[in-house]
Amino acid sequence: MRYPDRRNYVVARPLYSENSFNQEHEKVHRYHTTFIDHLVVFFSCTKDKAKRMLFTFLPILSWLPAYPFKEWLLSDVVSGLSTGLIAVLQGLAFALLVYIPPGYGLYAAFFPVLTYFVLGTSKHISVGPFPVLSLMVGTAALRLVPNDGSVGSLGNNTFPADLSEEEQRVLAAASITVLAGIFQLALGICRVGFLVIYLSDPLVSGYTTAAAVHVFVSQLKFVLGLNVPGIGGILSLFKTLEKIFTQITQTNIADLVASIIIMVCVFVFKEINDRYKSKLPVPIPIEVIMTIIACGLSYAFSFDTRFDMQIIGNITKGFQTPVTPSPDIFQEVVADAFSISIVAFAVAYSVAKVYSMKHDYVINGSQELIAFGISNIFSGCFRGFASSTALSRSAVQESTGGKTQIAGLISAMLVLIVIVAIGFLLEPLPKSVLGALVLVNLKGMLMQVTEIPRLYKKDRFDCMVWVMSFVVVIILGLDLGLAAAVGFELLTIVFRTQFPRCRVLGNIKGTDIYRDRKDYLDIYEPEGVKIFRCQAPIFFANIDFFREKLITAVGFNPIRILRKRNKALRKIKKLWKKGELEITQKGMISCTILNNIDTDDEIDNRNIEELDQPTDTTELPFQIDWNAELPANIRVPPVDFHSIILDFAAVSFLDYSAMKGIKSILKEFIRINVDMYIVDCDIELLEKLERCQFFDDEITNSIFFLTAHDAVLNILEKHDPTNHQCIHMADGMSIISAVDAPHELKERMREKWDNITKHHDNPLLVLAFEQHKNGKSLKRKR
Amino acid sequence: MRYPDRRNYVVARPLYSENSFNQEHEKVHRYHTTFIDHLVVFFSCTKDKAKRMLFTFLPILSWLPAYPFKEWLLSDVVSGLSTGLIAVLQGLAFALLVYIPPGYGLYAAFFPVLTYFVLGTSKHISVGPFPVLSLMVGTAALRLVPNDGSVGSLGNNTFPADLSEEEQRVLAAASITVLAGIFQLALGICRVGFLVIYLSDPLVSGYTTAAAVHVFVSQLKFVLGLNVPGIGGILSLFKTLEKIFTQITQTNIADLVASIIIMVCVFVFKEINDRYKSKLPVPIPIEVIMTIIACGLSYAFSFDTRFDMQIIGNITKGFQTPVTPSPDIFQEVVADAFSISIVAFAVAYSVAKVYSMKHDYVINGSQELIAFGISNIFSGCFRGFASSTALSRSAVQESTGGKTQIAGLISAMLVLIVIVAIGFLLEPLPKSVLGALVLVNLKGMLMQVTEIPRLYKKDRFDCMVWVMSFVVVIILGLDLGLAAAVGFELLTIVFRTQFPRCRVLGNIKGTDIYRDRKDYLDIYEPEGVKIFRCQAPIFFANIDFFREKLITAVGFNPIRILRKRNKALRKIKKLWKKGELEITQKGMISCTILNNIDTDDEIDNRNIEELDQPTDTTELPFQIDWNAELPANIRVPPVDFHSIILDFAAVSFLDYSAMKGIKSILKEFIRINVDMYIVDCDIELLEKLERCQFFDDEITNSIFFLTAHDAVLNILEKHDPTNHQCIHMADGMSIISAVDAPHELKERMREKWDNITKHHDNPLLVLAFEQHKNGKSLKRKR
Repeated sequence: MRYPDRRNYVVARPLYSENSFNQEHEKVHRYHTTFIDHLVVFFSCTKDKAKRMLFTFLPILSWLPAYPFKEWLLSDVVSGLSTGLIAVLQGLAFALLVYIPPGYGLYAAFFPVLTYFVLGTSKHISVGPFPVLSLMVGTAALRLVPNDGSVGSLGNNTFPADLSEEEQRVLAAASITVLAGIFQLALGICRVGFLVIYLSDPLVSGYTTAAAVHVFVSQLKFVLGLNVPGIGGILSLFKTLEKIFTQITQTNIADLVASIIIMVCVFVFKEINDRYKSKLPVPIPIEVIMTIIACGLSYAFSFDTRFDMQIIGNITKGFQTPVTPSPDIFQEVVADAFSISIVAFAVAYSVAKVYSMKHDYVINGSQELIAFGISNIFSGCFRGFASSTALSRSAVQESTGGKTQIAGLISAMLVLIVIVAIGFLLEPLPKSVLGALVLVNLKGMLMQVTEIPRLYKKDRFDCMVWVMSFVVVIILGLDLGLAAAVGFELLTIVFRTQFPRCRVLGNIKGTDIYRDRKDYLDIYEPEGVKIFRCQAPIFFANIDFFREKLITAVGFNPIRILRKRNKALRKIKKLWKKGELEITQKGMISCTILNNIDTDDEIDNRNIEELDQPTDTTELPFQIDWNAELPANIRVPPVDFHSIILDFAAVSFLDYSAMKGIKSILKEFIRINVDMYIVDCDIELLEKLERCQFFDDEITNSIFFLTAHDAVLNILEKHDPTNHQCIHMADGMSIISAVDAPHELKERMREKWDNITKHHDNPLLVLAFEQHKNGKSLKRKR
Repeated sequence: MRYPDRRNYVVARPLYSENSFNQEHEKVHRYHTTFIDHLVVFFSCTKDKAKRMLFTFLPILSWLPAYPFKEWLLSDVVSGLSTGLIAVLQGLAFALLVYIPPGYGLYAAFFPVLTYFVLGTSKHISVGPFPVLSLMVGTAALRLVPNDGSVGSLGNNTFPADLSEEEQRVLAAASITVLAGIFQLALGICRVGFLVIYLSDPLVSGYTTAAAVHVFVSQLKFVLGLNVPGIGGILSLFKTLEKIFTQITQTNIADLVASIIIMVCVFVFKEINDRYKSKLPVPIPIEVIMTIIACGLSYAFSFDTRFDMQIIGNITKGFQTPVTPSPDIFQEVVADAFSISIVAFAVAYSVAKVYSMKHDYVINGSQELIAFGISNIFSGCFRGFASSTALSRSAVQESTGGKTQIAGLISAMLVLIVIVAIGFLLEPLPKSVLGALVLVNLKGMLMQVTEIPRLYKKDRFDCMVWVMSFVVVIILGLDLGLAAAVGFELLTIVFRTQFPRCRVLGNIKGTDIYRDRKDYLDIYEPEGVKIFRCQAPIFFANIDFFREKLITAVGFNPIRILRKRNKALRKIKKLWKKGELEITQKGMISCTILNNIDTDDEIDNRNIEELDQPTDTTELPFQIDWNAELPANIRVPPVDFHSIILDFAAVSFLDYSAMKGIKSILKEFIRINVDMYIVDCDIELLEKLERCQFFDDEITNSIFFLTAHDAVLNILEKHDPTNHQCIHMADGMSIISAVDAPHELKERMREKWDNITKHHDNPLLVLAFEQHKNGKSLKRKR
């Protein structure tokens, strides 16, 4: 009565095992498409399909003809121009990360855009160099062509003899880029773009933060004006820092001052841009302004000669001849190229996804892979280096009103103009200015560190993934680190399910609800029944844990009981053969002679397997009650229950080890006469078990019941044959056999019903699930 | 009536949401032990604990004092002698895999046994060299000290100048062994022995099979009497095979014939041993017999000079001085040593587990790690190489009656005798004989290939793990291959849950059971309600898939509907301000002017986020029925249902990405006025969601219901306010509000009940869940 507004409901339904349920409810036969079907569909060709494929492969065909020139062209041009200015600067700056002359960065900002314009499905990302990628290419190129004068990992004979060290590195970077493109293209054609899903948000965040640290350190030398050779491989970060600190006294003050001024200005104006976003028609292009000022001052005051500052120097006008990538290089950089291809795609895809969600259009992962693959191959052949998208540049393109890739094309045109015509104007620009621009742009990535406390609160495992990704990338570098981070991330998925919460459930009195018996006071555990729930899929990593927990919950190890029973049985058989046993009226054994029996007889090693077989009493003309006192000092631990219910609701899959393990657990319990039931098992799983010959003489598929309640009622009926109906009536959970429901019982039920319906406040009172002699109360003090 | 024996049951209980359930059923406050608690327990010290720790660290203290000398000593000695003979031979043979003189193999078979005797917890495994491990050590040692005359990866200056190449390799192998031991010791002290669980059965099986192939190929040169340098690294298997085939014409026929004879004899006698296992008191020691014969013949006929066969040659009598492992070597072999330590432990532990299960005693994973760690450090310091256990040797020890590690000690004594006294007798033994013995012993491992078809039938993923482990180990070698195989195995766990089966459920008529609507004919989907079940945990790899599937099931994308509604709302507001709208009686809008409205008005980019906010109709004095016809050509797709139920029974965990994803999905639906419910959610998960601030103004924890049925009834009551009671009565699922149950209804219920109980055959007839005007039947043709 405490809850006058509570609503009740009644369910009256048959008690269902899976088998009886399937008998009553006809199952629709569903045709499952096989692998062959998929192949047939995949290779069938119709006119429509060909057209669809063409449109998929060349997305430009679908959007360009419908382009509303009048409405969109202007904003695309404005956006393209703003983006183009940034692209030029970033191209120059990021080329420093590849340890090649800055001019080549312009190629990386130009070529890929052309192909992406035709092939890409995202309308808003700005394709071109990305600092992390540039550093990855640079590290690999540096291993092939070191800049400290030593011999690279390729030996001396790979490159034509007349190439300078920097030209060799350009070749190496181009080859790496082409190989990464080939990987992307292959992944795209195999339609495995979904693999990028394994790069979860915490992983990408940790990875890019660590990558930003790497980029930061690699740019320090430009900012400080030091001459530190690039270092690759494990611990390269620390080695580079060491070199920088040993040389720190030689810092070029002019470089440092220029960098600091640039950084402060850009930083302040970016904050202003952010704060007055809504009021400014176009963000202030502070980077471009600072670059122009720096260029002008450097030219006017000859920074390079006066202050000994490193300047960009000669930017080759126009384009250079395409190069053939070298297969020798391919062999050496397979691993690097693979991680570059994955990182490039992951970064671009995640940025593209954000804008596609915002502007509500569809991007196609596989097509994006193909687009980036071809772009990188194309760009690599023309001496560019690996491209993806930079978040900051894409943000500019979108926020200045870019509607389609037309904006991207315009920005590429601007880069083209710089390349062919006005590049020489940038020649006096000090490298320290470019370095400073890179550093400022890292702010966003470095600030991701603030995610750690938030993640820690939300999910420890995700926090661990972040921290581990960060640490391994800092230590192992960008490529190996990525592999290690992904490995660790996959491990956390296993971790999460490796120690699943296993619960012993009890019935909430008067309902069909089963909950953890430790969680509630008014909970009822039917006597002789254990209901065990494992809150995770079961597979090789937790099947032993599952077994252990079940044994703990049950309180004994079934195999031990079985062995003891079998040993006892041997003795009993021996006694019986000797005629020393007397059979009592009930068909049980009792003892005649109490002494003179070897209690510790040695079991032959070779027969130890026999002890694991079911207790075989067929020879004996009597039955053995293992829980009763046995004759002749034979002791077998009593088993105080008769049924175990395994709740499989959360078991979303079982692997082969788990199936084997569960089969053996079921067998062991069944052999000591404990009935096993599995409830709430997924249909697929059940079908799989049948397919895999999980069932045999001992384990049949009749152990499956629909719910724990069905199984419990079935058990109570079976193990409490004399007075179960009344008890269950009194408990409010009625179970009535169709055949033998006596008249009195029906009368009692009717009375109950009358009582229920008469009651005005609460017409369907829940019948109380009272304690009865078979039940035990679990009232516990806190 | 078709099922006269079927039993029915009735549940009458309140309709529960999680909140109302928790109000009625007091939850016990459980104290969860924190990390600090664990630390306190871990660092607390009592007398008992100290004693227990001592016994744990020195298992010998617990079993040796209780050793029944009279009964067990004899069988231990017999078993020890048989095992010792095999140990000597295997020691010599496996040393060939390390590319060091066979005599050192005896050290590997002697030293580790001594420490394991004191520290080990398994009573039946025979500690000593294992072919796969030996090959792993050999591969690493060979990289450091190549045997083709080139400079190893360490350079020239690591070893004292006066050491021969083989002595250098012995030093290298010893250092690797010590480092592997240190890793094992560290893992043991950190109690992370459970990590070995990640090596699932299919992985270990595939790995050892591939390793057996490696061992096979590495022994071919001895069997053929060829002089092939050892090759390590990626693809070494194929490179070695290439070398062997280019030299195959130089085969030493004498070696080949001797090997074939040995192999055939040993093979045949092993089969006999197997077949007549029960009749033979002790297996025929055929390997020992063949070795003695070969030794004798070789000595008598001077095989080495006459047939140019390679013989073992000088076996140093006694022991050599211990060595200090070199830190320079440690640096180079970290990865190798780590994989060696893992493989060594995994093999030993899996064998030990088999025997501990069989003989029913407990082995302690962490203590085993410590025991093997110390054994390897000890053995490495005395120029032994990494040891574990060989399955074949352990089988001999156990089957010949070994009861405890006393047998192991006896076998070590036999090895000791060979080392200090009679080793010289083995000097004339041809290496080809040892090679042949290794090859024959590989049979068991190679035969594991037969598991593939069985695995394929049982579980595709496990089969893939087997095949991949095999392939990557063949290609990448034993160390890198192991890492790749583990990585792939972890990936399969993610695979299994990456594309979970998502189902739309319907009600099985007349019950509280919900099943896949496609599976059954007599299934009922309440109108306006979707019940969606995801059969897997949800995490970063499948949250997008979950979202997609839900949207497919629902038939529309909520965010699109929301945006369209918001756009429409802007127009309506504009119209309303202009006074062009007329409000009808019901408070809905209707249109006055049909033309003159800009249908395609451009949305400002900067305001696009506003479209994702809830539709804000507070300013308007009327309500909008979005499913009705809207005025002025404004079109919003109709949403034809009002509630979605997510069944979370199988969602065993959610990571941060999934929480974010689900929150946004819930929000999107709630914002277009679709009620969301989550049912069958695990309590832990619910608590976690509360902890992580999952709930806010829009998403409250009142969306959680105990079962799908509770949620459905709640929804029907809410959305069918006029006649729900009668309908539900007629449907057999009664839901009655406490307040307003009319007299007539109660009468009807009573009649029903009378009918039920009067019926003789089936006292609790299930009331049919008939179609009514609100439901739609899902009768489908096949």
